[in-house]
Amino acid sequence: MNQNPHVAVVGATGAVGVEMIRTLERRGFPTSRLTLLASARSVGRQLTYRGEPVAVAELTADAFAGIDIALFSAGGGISKEIAPAAVKAGCVVVDNSSAFRMDPTVPLVVPEINAADIAQHQGIIANPNCTTAITLMALHPLHAAFGCRRIFASTYQAVSGTGAKAIEELRQQVQQIAAGQPVTRSVYPHQIAFNVLPHVDSFLPTGYTKEEMKLENEGRKIMHHPAFRASVTCVRVPVYRAHSVAVSAEFEQPVSVEAALEVLGRAPGLDIVDDPANAAYPLPLAQAEKDNCAVGRVRLDCALDNGLCFWVSGDQLLKGAALNAVQIAEALLKLA
Amino acid sequence: MNQNPHVAVVGATGAVGVEMIRTLERRGFPTSRLTLLASARSVGRQLTYRGEPVAVAELTADAFAGIDIALFSAGGGISKEIAPAAVKAGCVVVDNSSAFRMDPTVPLVVPEINAADIAQHQGIIANPNCTTAITLMALHPLHAAFGCRRIFASTYQAVSGTGAKAIEELRQQVQQIAAGQPVTRSVYPHQIAFNVLPHVDSFLPTGYTKEEMKLENEGRKIMHHPAFRASVTCVRVPVYRAHSVAVSAEFEQPVSVEAALEVLGRAPGLDIVDDPANAAYPLPLAQAEKDNCAVGRVRLDCALDNGLCFWVSGDQLLKGAALNAVQIAEALLKLA
Repeated sequence: MNQNPHVAVVGATGAVGVEMIRTLERRGFPTSRLTLLASARSVGRQLTYRGEPVAVAELTADAFAGIDIALFSAGGGISKEIAPAAVKAGCVVVDNSSAFRMDPTVPLVVPEINAADIAQHQGIIANPNCTTAITLMALHPLHAAFGCRRIFASTYQAVSGTGAKAIEELRQQVQQIAAGQPVTRSVYPHQIAFNVLPHVDSFLPTGYTKEEMKLENEGRKIMHHPAFRASVTCVRVPVYRAHSVAVSAEFEQPVSVEAALEVLGRAPGLDIVDDPANAAYPLPLAQAEKDNCAVGRVRLDCALDNGLCFWVSGDQLLKGAALNAVQIAEALLKLA
Repeated sequence: MNQNPHVAVVGATGAVGVEMIRTLERRGFPTSRLTLLASARSVGRQLTYRGEPVAVAELTADAFAGIDIALFSAGGGISKEIAPAAVKAGCVVVDNSSAFRMDPTVPLVVPEINAADIAQHQGIIANPNCTTAITLMALHPLHAAFGCRRIFASTYQAVSGTGAKAIEELRQQVQQIAAGQPVTRSVYPHQIAFNVLPHVDSFLPTGYTKEEMKLENEGRKIMHHPAFRASVTCVRVPVYRAHSVAVSAEFEQPVSVEAALEVLGRAPGLDIVDDPANAAYPLPLAQAEKDNCAVGRVRLDCALDNGLCFWVSGDQLLKGAALNAVQIAEALLKLA
């Protein structure tokens, strides 16, 4: 891999795309050039990279000549349509959509957990679901130490996970309510302001949403743990940024809070915020725009014999998306 | 019991007290007289009952002569101090605080579940914790049919559960943010607007909050099920009114979604809202000011062999507090 790669951000004007650009900048990623691609209606918009304006170009299948690494975040349909052409042009694709995550020929990577899988790539590396990445940042170290059998998890997911329009919808609904006006909506099926919606992504015939199955399916692949079971309820909450997850986890080995905190304290990319006496625990508001995820409320599970409860929060635009993608790109540079 | 009792509402000016008055009115409770009691600073305030003004009188230990039933919602400290005097004066106390709930001489009652326990009272009947009452409205019918072993639950609790000041704090923080002003707080230890706090009630040495243990402890007593286990994470969310709970429940008997819906469909005080294809599931915004709780998202649990997941929402000022208390008072009238 070119050590000063020409990088493309696909979906550059979206909520995740903008964070990808900022993350490349912030981490001093050694781009020789940055190309910004988006749909036709964003063409001509200028974004800033390292203090210089960069015009947004149109995303087409033949836009990838000379590009070494493309970070895709433009939805699964576009990834499926365009990523193969990018690979054919010699580009390595880091894809933030769900399009290729469960494809056995595509590594699905959280670098702190399974960076070694990147070496197996055949042109595409998948970035996991945001809630999955954030949950596994705390769960995987515990799994490595104690052997996780299964989890029961409920999520508290921010509107930014849906995208820029959802952020605007929440903001607008709050204004409408303050002004005594009727509440309008176009992104979510119900008012999100001062409400919670047990509905993230579309429903499957089983009654689960697709989002709810990702933690089990992607968790199995990322942790190399095909027997992992996860019972998940995904809920959208009126938070602008950063997801939180309440987890009950059952382990093969006996566990203690002390041993768990010791393991979590050594985990990369994870901060422990766990001092209940001083009202210190992870908060989505505190994790917004932070690279690290935070774990706290660690305690023995009341309903499991070898069980722990914990609460994890993380910025789903960063560790749940842009940061993880850039970390994969960083790991790509280190491959021979 | 006098069939046209003289009723007192203790803590009449609080969020729950106001709902108690409205609930007595709305359900046509046959009061011969209503006395409103509150702390000295509320004395002189006038509230309306059946179109007539009623002045708030001062709550003292000797205020209960001639009162048949007193609905207390003024905090555990006041219940402990004053309720025994009220009982001595011949009054039956229905107490909404946690003060007497686990006292073995005090029935703890959700009328749809264990109304018969009321007959054992010795002057005080306890109203359960709001989250417990709402969760059990869906869980108990399933337990009766399939035998519940344990649950894993995460809550999404509205600010009205904290009281009128918390409602105002959320409203004010939203305004401050809209105006670009600094956010102030006095009720919660962190900003609640556009945030979620995994902290309801105070912390125990185990790392659980008191609130989190109520579902197990009160659930055992209400369901007459001493082996019931509950692993709970309680979370405050920026919703004004109505709590929601995501539950994974394990049963002794095999379960199916069809059988569960059949059981839930026959449960009193509970509506099924479960049509994912049409984005129909319980929402706190929809349950606000409704007597019935709502259950939905019923599905087989991915991580349990005889397990069900469900989502329940209910107005914690009504079924979680005022309505349940008035229902207990109604049941008292039916005692011989």
